[in-house]
Formats: sequence, C-alpha cells, structure tokens
Amino acid sequence: MNRTHQFTQIPRRAACCAAVLALAVGAAAVMAADEAHDLRGPLVLKRQGSFFVGGEEIAAAAGDLGQGAAPGHITINQMYVEYMIPKHVRKVPVVMVHGGGLSGKSFETTPDGRMGWNEYFVRRGHPVYNVDQVSRARSGFNPTVFNKVRAGLLPPSALPNITRTSDEAAWQNFRFGPSFGVPWPDEQFPVEHAAEFSQQGIPDLNAILTPPTPPALSSPDSYKVLADLAIKLKGAVLMGHSESSDFPLRAVLTDSTGIKGAIFLETTVPARCLQFTDPEIAKLATVPILFEFNDHLDQQPAGVLASFKNCKALIAKINAAGGNATMLHPAELGIHGNSHMVMLDKNNLQIADLILRWMHDNIGTEEKQDNDE
Amino acid sequence: MNRTHQFTQIPRRAACCAAVLALAVGAAAVMAADEAHDLRGPLVLKRQGSFFVGGEEIAAAAGDLGQGAAPGHITINQMYVEYMIPKHVRKVPVVMVHGGGLSGKSFETTPDGRMGWNEYFVRRGHPVYNVDQVSRARSGFNPTVFNKVRAGLLPPSALPNITRTSDEAAWQNFRFGPSFGVPWPDEQFPVEHAAEFSQQGIPDLNAILTPPTPPALSSPDSYKVLADLAIKLKGAVLMGHSESSDFPLRAVLTDSTGIKGAIFLETTVPARCLQFTDPEIAKLATVPILFEFNDHLDQQPAGVLASFKNCKALIAKINAAGGNATMLHPAELGIHGNSHMVMLDKNNLQIADLILRWMHDNIGTEEKQDNDE
Repeated sequence: MNRTHQFTQIPRRAACCAAVLALAVGAAAVMAADEAHDLRGPLVLKRQGSFFVGGEEIAAAAGDLGQGAAPGHITINQMYVEYMIPKHVRKVPVVMVHGGGLSGKSFETTPDGRMGWNEYFVRRGHPVYNVDQVSRARSGFNPTVFNKVRAGLLPPSALPNITRTSDEAAWQNFRFGPSFGVPWPDEQFPVEHAAEFSQQGIPDLNAILTPPTPPALSSPDSYKVLADLAIKLKGAVLMGHSESSDFPLRAVLTDSTGIKGAIFLETTVPARCLQFTDPEIAKLATVPILFEFNDHLDQQPAGVLASFKNCKALIAKINAAGGNATMLHPAELGIHGNSHMVMLDKNNLQIADLILRWMHDNIGTEEKQDNDE
Repeated sequence: MNRTHQFTQIPRRAACCAAVLALAVGAAAVMAADEAHDLRGPLVLKRQGSFFVGGEEIAAAAGDLGQGAAPGHITINQMYVEYMIPKHVRKVPVVMVHGGGLSGKSFETTPDGRMGWNEYFVRRGHPVYNVDQVSRARSGFNPTVFNKVRAGLLPPSALPNITRTSDEAAWQNFRFGPSFGVPWPDEQFPVEHAAEFSQQGIPDLNAILTPPTPPALSSPDSYKVLADLAIKLKGAVLMGHSESSDFPLRAVLTDSTGIKGAIFLETTVPARCLQFTDPEIAKLATVPILFEFNDHLDQQPAGVLASFKNCKALIAKINAAGGNATMLHPAELGIHGNSHMVMLDKNNLQIADLILRWMHDNIGTEEKQDNDE
C-alpha cells in the first residue's frame, strides 16, 4: 500500500455536503459513527482549561516596565494554550496555531457564529490545544523596547515594525474576492460578516522576536515551545496556518519526539517551502505531513500559486526521501471557493472532515490515550 | 427583611472547606444540590465559543499598519468574549473582567492547575462570559502610534506608557507575602507556582485608550461595551477586578438596562470608590452591588486598606440612597490569607461559593433563561 495518502476526486456537483464527501473518499465505519454524532447536542468534556508552555525570565531595568517602575523580572516568550478534552478520548491530540495578525480566535466560533475547528475536532474525539503565538494576544509580549524608546534611551528605529492587516488587504490576500467588497461567485468565506472578521485582527509583533536563520520567514521562538508541547502531551499533531504554516515542520526539525504528524495550512510566502536542506528533508520524512491549499490560487498576485507549486515540489522531495507527505487541494476534489481563512469558511467542517480523514488514515486515531495535558 | 445581604461570621477553624462554610452561611437546598455535583465529572455544555462586542472602524494612513503598508481600515476597541453555557441554564449569566497587566486567563485554570472561576460558575449553573479588556490580548490594540513614532512622524513621547507588573511588584502588591519570595504564614495564593503566574502577565496598553473623566483611573472605552454586552445577553451580572473593579459600576452609569448585578473585586487605588457623585450614587442604588476585599489589608503600603475603607463609605452612601450594596470581606468570616488574586487562591472555590450565595440571595438565580449569547 502506498504510504502517501490519496484524496479521491469527487464530482463537482457532489461536493455539497460532508456526508457525500465522506462516502466519496471512502469513509470507514469510524467516520460514519462520528457523523452520526449530533453536532448540536451538548458538548461533553472530560476537561477544559488553559496553561502556558515555554518562556524565559528576563531582568528589566528601571523604567522598562513603565514610567517610574522599579527594576524587576518578567517572563517573556511563553505561549498560551487553551484546551478541550472530549469525554471519551479516542484520538491523537491536535495543536492548532493561528496565522499572522491573528490569534487563537481563528479556530474558535466563525465570524458568522458557526462552530469553529477547535470544537469540531473535539466532537470528533480529538483533544484540542489552541494557542496564541509567542508574543501575541494572551501570550503577552516584551514591552521593554517600547518604554526605552519612549524614555529616549533607544532611538525610534529600535521599535519593531508592527503589522496589522487592513480590511482591504485581507479581502484580496485572503482571497475573499477579486477586489475589496466583491466576492468570488463561489466564495466560501462568509463575506457578509467581514466586519466581524476585522474584529479578530491583532497587531503582529513577531518582528520583536529572535530573527530566524535563514532570515525573515517566521519565529524560531515558537518552534521549541511547540516541540516541547507535543512531548508534554505525550504525542500530538501540530497544525500551522499561513505565518505559522511551517512551524510544525520547524518543530519536527527542532525535536520530533512528540510529533505524530504535521499539518501545513496554506502560505502566501513562496520561499516557505524552499527553505529546507536535504538533511532537513530527511528528518521531515520521519513524520506524516499534510499540506493544504485552497481555491483561486491563480487569480491573486499574492504568491500563493508559487507557494502551492513550491510545496508540491517539497512533498516530492520528502516522499523521495521515504517520507509520507500529501497535498490536499479541495478544488481538485470538486470543492470550490475556499479562502485562505479556510477554518472560517462556510464549508469549514467539510474541509475539517478531509483533514480528520487524513489523520485517521496516516496517524492512527484509534489509540486509547489519557494524556490530558 | 433587610435588602442588604449579611454574610454570617463563622468560626475560624470551621473555614476549612466549602461544605462547612455553606452550612455556616445557611445554605439553601439549591446550594446543597450544587455541591452534590461532582466537580470532577464531565463538563456538559449546551454551547461554548467566542465573539466580539464593540469596536470602531478607523482609517489608517500609509505606513500606519506596518512599514510600506498601504492605507486601509481596521477595527479597534473591540472586546473579545469567550463563553461557556451549561447544559441546563438555571441562573443569571456572569461576565468576568480581569485586572491590569493580565487577560481573561485570570479566570481560567489556576497557576497550579486547579479549576478556574469560569468553569466553576458554569458548573454551578451560570453561563459565563470571560473577556479580554479592550486593547489587551485577543482584543488587539491600535498599532498606529507605534508605527508613526518608528517612522519619525511622531515624537517618542507620543508612545503610550506601557506597564507590566514585575514578579517582585506582584508579590508585594498582590499580597503574596511581606517581601519577595516570603509568603504570609496563612497565604492562600499558590506561591510555589509564582513562575506560572508570571507567565500570565501581559503589557498593559490602557494608556493608549481614551483618557477617562475624571482622569487616570480606568478605561471608559470598556464601559459602554460591557453595558452593551449585558443587553445582548438579555441580563447579566458584571464582575470586575482591580483595574477593572469599577467597570461594572461605570457600566451601570452608562446604561444599566441589562445589568442585573455588579461585583467589584478589590482595588488598590483609594480614589476608585471616591469618584462617584450623588446623582451617580442614586443610579448605583438601582442595581445590587457586591464589593469584595481580601486579607492582609493593613500590612502592605499598597493603598488597599484605604480602598477598603473608601468602598465601605461608598456602600453606606449607596444604601442610604435606597440601594443594595454589600461588603464581602472573607477575613471577617474567619477565612484568612486571601490575596489580591483571589480567583487563583488555593481556596478560590470557597470564595466563589460566597459570591454565588450573594447572587442567589440578591439577584434571583432560578430564572429560566435561554439567552445563549
């Protein structure tokens, strides 16, 4: 049997619902049982809560922690993790990592109030750990450079470049449509709730973090934290999106001990799949990896088509090295109109089903586990 | 019957557990049934998720959203709200608002891994809405001033004063003990997990918000958002802590339509209870209000004893105006050693029981509701 997962193409007109799709991709009894589960029934959790992983203590000078503040110590570079564990844990834990200018909110309730992937994966039997990236949202950030500049101790050029995605930039770069306010005819993003999506935007402080080597793509401060989290969970699948799409792969290169699988959800940065050396590819070949790219790849000048092609080339290299890497491109299965923010799209649970299927086929999801956190 | 709730004093040595306390304060059948509920059993939720309230769209100039970024629009001053609704909603929703330099994490799992107030209140039948303050954590913030200073368009003095509580300042100001590393003999904060508490710290950007009138105490941008949230929930109790202790009262003054009760958890700012005019006090007299202050009030130079006295004076004024305001001071009930971070203390559920009791007696918690969000 080919170790590489094949998503079966289904007719376009059959792409209307998860049930049809599940049949089309050859759903096993497990999936059928899952789908019989009433998504509107009570959510029964063994446990829920939150904790932090990682971080380091630093000494702050007088004034670093606010005007007139005494010197003292603070923790920086920790990562906030919220979790839900289903009553009956049958499957591998999944760690979800959001993209640039966003927070863990990406995997929660959608802008139009539908169920997010965090709850859906739990209802499908997976413990879910949803994080805020290091230096973002509930993970906090290091304030010292801002206060030093304010006090005149550092020049304004010492400030990090803080990025925040505008509504206009999101519309085009996240592929809601060809121009601001105009959706693609088959658009799956709930564009009528773009204002609620705008509320999710968070200034991105990753420029404050340790510069990566090779430079400028993402945040090495997150890689070890994610690898450590997978170990703490006694095995987990890491899922990254966009800015964090390659974090799971980088975590594998850092320490693959706890990583049972890696999911790479779409990047618009073509270089992100070109970064890996042959020794790194050999290590990536030790873990099942799913890449996922959505629709309208050729209709936006955002680098996503080049990224798609580069990631396909990376998949070929990983598989040539004996690995198990797969591309999931829903448009090839007749599922059209998905956006960069696929976890929020109207058919977000349909796409989730494809990912769940891949995990089931490639990682083994019927393990008995009690690795609560 | 006196409208003002009286917490019955109990012997010091009986303060060991919630069950004894509940008996001592005269627990009704409702409370006994609640306590029979197994806190370690599955958490059964009707629904959970998150949404935003409030916010406004602003136009950002070129460069305001990052070096080289095009002009565009973003949303600022929105408030992130995460919620859990128990399967059987029997009681009034509670909105929890964290304090300075912190996030909604304050009401989740404690630093030593125990159940947070958000889950506990849900297990007691209350829908819980836990927020990140405007301009904090998952609520994002307005990045434009930082990028303008970085680009030389504004002077460094235009930067907000960003405060972050050091581990040393937290130890003394949050009353973990008399000096850093030394706990009070009866300390209830889990000081052996102070490092995990340090991970919860977030730079406080409230200085970026609209200055309040009268100045400098808190964040008027939050008041209307909280009042609006209570209306959206078709009635809710608002709970504030420390920096946000008076937000519920300020929300009452803004629009009391949806506010069924207000809970003011400890402030160290003496002026916070002195701000209210007679007409404002008359309005505060229309809503049940609970003030809560913890132990070691006279042993730290942090303004908390003066705050306690000033809030007691405010309570007298509210009640003289026909209102229903109560002070809960667990030390007066024989419960000793609670810290400023009472929701994280080792006996956090014991204190929660006292608050639940006050809500039951003063707000009426047996309503049938279906106000999911």
